[in-house]
Amino acid sequence: MAQVDMASWKEKIRAQLARDREQAIALLQSWVQEKSVQGQEASIQRKIADYLTNLGLEVDMWIMGGDELLRHPYFVSPRTSFEESPNVVGIWRGTGGGRSMILNGHVDVVPEGDRNQWEHDPYSGLVIDGKLYGRGSTDMKGGNLSSLLAIQTLKALGVRLKGDVIFESVVEEESGGAGTLATILRGYKADAALVPELTNMKIFPKQQGSMWFRLIVKGRGAHGGTRYEGVSAIEKSMLVVKAIAALEKRRNDRITDPLYAKLPIPIPINIGTIEGGKWPSSVPDEVKLEGRMGVAPGEEMADAKAEMAQALADLAKEDPWFAEHPVALEWFGAQWVPGQVADDHPLMDILRETYHEVMGKEVVVEAAPWGTDAGLLIKLADTPAIVIGPGVTQLGHYSNEYIELDAVFHCAEIFALTLLEWCGIAE
Amino acid sequence: MAQVDMASWKEKIRAQLARDREQAIALLQSWVQEKSVQGQEASIQRKIADYLTNLGLEVDMWIMGGDELLRHPYFVSPRTSFEESPNVVGIWRGTGGGRSMILNGHVDVVPEGDRNQWEHDPYSGLVIDGKLYGRGSTDMKGGNLSSLLAIQTLKALGVRLKGDVIFESVVEEESGGAGTLATILRGYKADAALVPELTNMKIFPKQQGSMWFRLIVKGRGAHGGTRYEGVSAIEKSMLVVKAIAALEKRRNDRITDPLYAKLPIPIPINIGTIEGGKWPSSVPDEVKLEGRMGVAPGEEMADAKAEMAQALADLAKEDPWFAEHPVALEWFGAQWVPGQVADDHPLMDILRETYHEVMGKEVVVEAAPWGTDAGLLIKLADTPAIVIGPGVTQLGHYSNEYIELDAVFHCAEIFALTLLEWCGIAE
Repeated sequence: MAQVDMASWKEKIRAQLARDREQAIALLQSWVQEKSVQGQEASIQRKIADYLTNLGLEVDMWIMGGDELLRHPYFVSPRTSFEESPNVVGIWRGTGGGRSMILNGHVDVVPEGDRNQWEHDPYSGLVIDGKLYGRGSTDMKGGNLSSLLAIQTLKALGVRLKGDVIFESVVEEESGGAGTLATILRGYKADAALVPELTNMKIFPKQQGSMWFRLIVKGRGAHGGTRYEGVSAIEKSMLVVKAIAALEKRRNDRITDPLYAKLPIPIPINIGTIEGGKWPSSVPDEVKLEGRMGVAPGEEMADAKAEMAQALADLAKEDPWFAEHPVALEWFGAQWVPGQVADDHPLMDILRETYHEVMGKEVVVEAAPWGTDAGLLIKLADTPAIVIGPGVTQLGHYSNEYIELDAVFHCAEIFALTLLEWCGIAE
Repeated sequence: MAQVDMASWKEKIRAQLARDREQAIALLQSWVQEKSVQGQEASIQRKIADYLTNLGLEVDMWIMGGDELLRHPYFVSPRTSFEESPNVVGIWRGTGGGRSMILNGHVDVVPEGDRNQWEHDPYSGLVIDGKLYGRGSTDMKGGNLSSLLAIQTLKALGVRLKGDVIFESVVEEESGGAGTLATILRGYKADAALVPELTNMKIFPKQQGSMWFRLIVKGRGAHGGTRYEGVSAIEKSMLVVKAIAALEKRRNDRITDPLYAKLPIPIPINIGTIEGGKWPSSVPDEVKLEGRMGVAPGEEMADAKAEMAQALADLAKEDPWFAEHPVALEWFGAQWVPGQVADDHPLMDILRETYHEVMGKEVVVEAAPWGTDAGLLIKLADTPAIVIGPGVTQLGHYSNEYIELDAVFHCAEIFALTLLEWCGIAE
């Protein structure tokens, strides 16, 4: 049962959000207009730090680095210098005696891809029919705004909380979480965390991890006119792609968790890139494949890696070529740690209740089809972290990405109510 | 019956070649040490032009270009400017009244590929156990040396021929013959031609043509974690590769020419390169394949193109995806015109006889498994062209390419005797 009077607070919060609505939309527009792809996050982070300072939070902005980070077993990033990519943390200090809460979100966005597939400028921030358009709107600047509005609204209403609220605006999530790892190494942890990634306002208490792999498939070069004297690495790659598909099927057949029931493939293995051969009339002697392997919430990443290695080794039984020319396997680039929060965790109950209060219906609980920084918070910061946010998976990483503005404000209401209940209201 | 005394001339030629052997090997080494990949042929061509001048030939060295070339229906090249890629022609003018002969060979080499698959530097020119190693040794600088030695040896023996001998050192063969096309447009033609490509000293009176194609296979992008929402262009490419293999089988099942009896696949279709996808954790929305399609000696290139287009269109029957997203087909870059010389052509008889004189056995006559510049000479210069040379197909375009030096000198003997008989000795 809730400690606070949900219905009454909901009305106050909603009224305050209505007063701030235009200002909040303009703020989100200004965030989306910042092209905060990897290595270009400094401008938006300064803007956010200033905003938090004006709200009265204690602000910590720093450039991450150093051996503790760079040599950490969970550090993954294509780079080691983060000059133009500061992290920002804002602390709304509680009066004491309450539970603390991290609100974690990333400001880095994936590149916009083929410009011609966008109807408008990818960084327009245009608002049309209640939707705000642009790269990063749904993944996940909209969710970040929900977190910020929850704090801003409670402060505007004169609320003082018992527990600390820690607003984390991090970099590097799209490359595997070095930004959030740096917050953990800097000492930030809490009794729980919310990560408003794009769940379409479902609760994701479990999330798969994922890892990037690179495969090198060997062939033997020859003149294309006598191609039977060579061995095509493209043809051999087809067998590798088939073996990966079979591995994906075996791994997913084992998943019985009802939270995954609605996903056609709970933990997909995606082959994202292929490249091989140098000349149209030569038999290609090498093909490189790069992809992303899902890791089940309760699975060790090392076990998943071993299973992939075994599947590739087993290719030799199908085709003796692979006995003499085994496929080379490398884990590189990004990884996201899997994680889970128990269904009976107190924050789950609060989220169910606040969601019902705001939306007038039961929340849907599912498992995340992708990894987020919540995995690191759970694994390394002893901070149970739940993913719920206003964005939509089908729009993230796509052209013409947008966010429903109503969803952002609904999420802000839910988060504000959740903070009241979780952190406690100081008398 | 031969006009000249074969046995006697063979001895003189062989003795002269023995005297020049070390010098000739050093010359070939210096050629192989020139990395004459596309766009970098100027240095070796200057070296060859100087050598021809010193031999007393009339030398014509020029940078090809101009509308007549660039707009010619048989012009194919990935480039339109040839600044660092001059053609060289050396003419040994005859006294008159004899048949003329072109000795045509290319100096451009294909890239060395994966450096790690080479035991030595790909441009070492190392001689080990009678083999000279390096990219271009077998394809076809060794053959070019045979041609040059035939001229050099006859001149050293004081021979004067009635017919002209035209030594052509061309660029761009590996990209489809723009170099030889330019010699034809410049007016070079003859009563016959020898092209010492890598036949392992077999006679190839027929040669397949070939053409380069590019296929674009479409998918639909999605986040790798929900890859079932997308369509992988890599998976669709596997169906395309299978369809191409089936097309290759149908086309080759029709080939009944006995000259092709020993080739496992008379007119292969080789898929040489593949490239697609931009991000390991995104579903790839496009894959590009490039390859080379063989064309039978008597086949029209347009008919072969139409058959490929039909095979791709038929994919829609197998998979409705291809009905809405047909594979795009483009013919680009290189092409080699197919061609044939009649078995009873007088040069065929002379080659059979000179080969027997030098090697002491019957020559093997087969059809070429690939196209050469001989096709252009036949089609556009009215010059019957026969392919025979010391290189070996199994070594061309491979790592650790080499040429058997003895074969180079045997070929030089055969060519020298052939020139005597074809062009006639001036009294």
